[in-house]
Amino acid sequence: MEYIKNFNVRNERNLTMLVDFYELTMANGYLDNNVGDKIAYFDMFFRRVPDGGGYCIMAGVQQLIEYMSSLSFTKDDINYLRSKNTFSDNFLNYLENFKFTCDVWAIPEGNPVFPNEPLVMVKGPIIQAQFVETMILLTINHQTLIATKANRICRAAEAKPVMEFGSRRAQGYDGAIYGARAAVIGGCSSSACTIAEEMFGIPAAGTMAHSWVQLFATEYESFAAWAKTYPDNCTLLIDTYNVLKSGLPNAIKVFDEVLKPQGFRPKGIRIDSGDITYLTKKCREFLDKAGYPDCKIVISNSLDEYIIRDVLSQGAQVDAFGVGERLITAKSEPVFGGVYKLVAIEDGNQIIPKIKISENEEKITNPGFKKIYRIFEKNTDKAMADLITLNDESIDESKPLEIFNPVHTWKRKKLKNYYVKDLLVKIFDKGQPIYESPSVMEIKEYAKQETEKLWSEVLRFENPHTFYVDLSTKLWKLKQSLLHQYSDIYEE
Amino acid sequence: MEYIKNFNVRNERNLTMLVDFYELTMANGYLDNNVGDKIAYFDMFFRRVPDGGGYCIMAGVQQLIEYMSSLSFTKDDINYLRSKNTFSDNFLNYLENFKFTCDVWAIPEGNPVFPNEPLVMVKGPIIQAQFVETMILLTINHQTLIATKANRICRAAEAKPVMEFGSRRAQGYDGAIYGARAAVIGGCSSSACTIAEEMFGIPAAGTMAHSWVQLFATEYESFAAWAKTYPDNCTLLIDTYNVLKSGLPNAIKVFDEVLKPQGFRPKGIRIDSGDITYLTKKCREFLDKAGYPDCKIVISNSLDEYIIRDVLSQGAQVDAFGVGERLITAKSEPVFGGVYKLVAIEDGNQIIPKIKISENEEKITNPGFKKIYRIFEKNTDKAMADLITLNDESIDESKPLEIFNPVHTWKRKKLKNYYVKDLLVKIFDKGQPIYESPSVMEIKEYAKQETEKLWSEVLRFENPHTFYVDLSTKLWKLKQSLLHQYSDIYEE
Repeated sequence: MEYIKNFNVRNERNLTMLVDFYELTMANGYLDNNVGDKIAYFDMFFRRVPDGGGYCIMAGVQQLIEYMSSLSFTKDDINYLRSKNTFSDNFLNYLENFKFTCDVWAIPEGNPVFPNEPLVMVKGPIIQAQFVETMILLTINHQTLIATKANRICRAAEAKPVMEFGSRRAQGYDGAIYGARAAVIGGCSSSACTIAEEMFGIPAAGTMAHSWVQLFATEYESFAAWAKTYPDNCTLLIDTYNVLKSGLPNAIKVFDEVLKPQGFRPKGIRIDSGDITYLTKKCREFLDKAGYPDCKIVISNSLDEYIIRDVLSQGAQVDAFGVGERLITAKSEPVFGGVYKLVAIEDGNQIIPKIKISENEEKITNPGFKKIYRIFEKNTDKAMADLITLNDESIDESKPLEIFNPVHTWKRKKLKNYYVKDLLVKIFDKGQPIYESPSVMEIKEYAKQETEKLWSEVLRFENPHTFYVDLSTKLWKLKQSLLHQYSDIYEE
Repeated sequence: MEYIKNFNVRNERNLTMLVDFYELTMANGYLDNNVGDKIAYFDMFFRRVPDGGGYCIMAGVQQLIEYMSSLSFTKDDINYLRSKNTFSDNFLNYLENFKFTCDVWAIPEGNPVFPNEPLVMVKGPIIQAQFVETMILLTINHQTLIATKANRICRAAEAKPVMEFGSRRAQGYDGAIYGARAAVIGGCSSSACTIAEEMFGIPAAGTMAHSWVQLFATEYESFAAWAKTYPDNCTLLIDTYNVLKSGLPNAIKVFDEVLKPQGFRPKGIRIDSGDITYLTKKCREFLDKAGYPDCKIVISNSLDEYIIRDVLSQGAQVDAFGVGERLITAKSEPVFGGVYKLVAIEDGNQIIPKIKISENEEKITNPGFKKIYRIFEKNTDKAMADLITLNDESIDESKPLEIFNPVHTWKRKKLKNYYVKDLLVKIFDKGQPIYESPSVMEIKEYAKQETEKLWSEVLRFENPHTFYVDLSTKLWKLKQSLLHQYSDIYEE
């Protein structure tokens, strides 16, 4: 699509200064203490799937690439930082000549992802690898949150199209724009957010508001005017006054009197309030009787996966859903708690693994420079487990593979007839972007395909089966040995 | 501050195409039906205060002005729209030469605002006045949501400073940037979001992450390095390993061995995990004993107004709060339900009021071109009520004023010794911006001052007294007469 070229024009924002101030005070401190060049390894990961679900859908990598590709400080930035009287001239000089040289890996967008596995890994001078923390978290947390929520909503809709409608209730402009992007990655078929089509090729969709209906002297007149302008694409909003007593009869009258004589079929009706189950059943009945069994019914009133599942289970006659605020803000759980942790540093040629201890066991990190293998069953292509290993470990697919629960280590499982996929893909090599993102619509298809590789027990809305994310024996032993170094601190 | 000039550089984004697609299909339809020039009046308002609170804090007007000032379609936009095969050439020509000519009014930022009163009013050709719906809602909904949440959190903190820390968990980049802006309007003293200082002059603040502590061979060494770099501004994060057994003793040792000999006092310690009440009491005790009663204690672990109130009521020894995800996403209620409704159209010289009917009484709109008077008690300067009137009504402050509940009209109250303020300020005159926004820090002060004019019963966290938002007799009668026109639809 030719207009996608516009992409870069719209996005030419340098977000280098969108950074937590402590990244700058730390960077200045690293330099001041002569450790700025020390090679560090950071993992970005999350600890819990929102809404009690079984998996998340990875999203945001493309925006991360754009951010890292455009890292640079303007003269104004430097002047502003100098005005803080906090930073050394040496540091400000460093920033003026800033060059990103890190290696970065990420799980490609659209992949189902699970707690405690690195979604993004950064290796590089700590002064840089630390600096990108804020934007990695902001970008991946936001889009993964929305893609995951959209995926739940679309599953509830049982293959009926879900349109993303939430721009007006989004948290900021990018909340709307990248939220629409993530919603489509998660499964939505289209978005009302026009700029998202221009930027990403996401189909834009929409019909009329109540104000259209109110502007005209009568509801009938407003519908007739719409049908005249959009005879081949006529969806009418029928709840401005009263769905069954006014909206529906007027719609059918316009279908009969304006569309039919011109040889057009109506496209649909939309209901935005009232008792959805009852109204859609009645509307379906009347539309069928009137000779419009092909006229679609679209609903759109504060929907989410729970309400959609409810109305469908009650027999609501719905062909498509418009979902707004509860999707674009992930209302039921609007925070995705991704974190970014130091996992190793280099000393000469040696990688020294680091661990973050916590009294809260689930907050303890997995140390070292790592890799994730997703293990698939050969016959079914179903994903059986993810195995986190140290980076130099490889798996011999010709041999059985024993995996075990990292907490209850007696829970063991021997896998046969499997193949593995290396989940993390290198996206920056010494600061140069080396990964080309697929289009958003391609990512959407990929997400669908990869999600279908999960067992239905993992797909459940509530109390899903916990997908195995295990550690290799080598990594597990490394973690235990580091933990034991800190045992004395936890002695009571 | 000189660096605020940077503002425009950073913000040079044309968000014209951030618009719900139906605004475009409607605009095309208005033109096609020769009603595009009809003068329409729209109100933006909300129906319910989030979190069961008593009021909201208006925010976002400055960004609305920027948006409306830069409305224009690029050649790429037009090409994209043409590719949709939905719009007439006539309409695309219109967009190519688009000129914003509306009048716009808004309640200035920082004012306490209440349900059902117009926060923004737009008057102009319907094709334009409709078009700006998406961005008015997106802008005001987002910032008012966050300013309101911040105001609750800051009230819970009882005048202790609250730092906004949430960028990494915000919903998109603007969620972080304008979220920080709104948080400060609501009462936060600073933000970790660096770009927000550069753009708005909001003080940026921050110290160190756990990774700083992990990088060095020992916790002591990491603290000593920090103290060396920031001897006059030394706040240490003491929970990387164990607060009482490791972090605090190491911090005190560094204060003694590194700061003291140089004549510096420590600034603070920060705790980001564990039992806040217990740990802060213990830390206060040990710091005092060690001779550092002036060392501040900062806490920052998933805080919101409820947790802050709890820990303070349990005697936690806290001097400042860092608040992240629960503020920047308004986690407890992340959607601000502002709507934008047609309230009148002009026919010749006449203003024809319009009403949106609903079976849901609270969804019925207030018709007509209106005004809001805030009524203050003369002796106390306390706000007593808001009175929504038709635009041509004025109030004679020398005479008693009777207000009444618009539903239970027998509930009446006669006000004496009052003065009124016209809440809505004109911000655009025939498409030209005519209002100059105060700085964010000025708005913050204004919000504080205006919030103090509310009775403490309205300020309550739970079950606050409902502030009166009444209709003038003339407006009430107009509304009743319009409602009765639709009675037949609601006959059972």
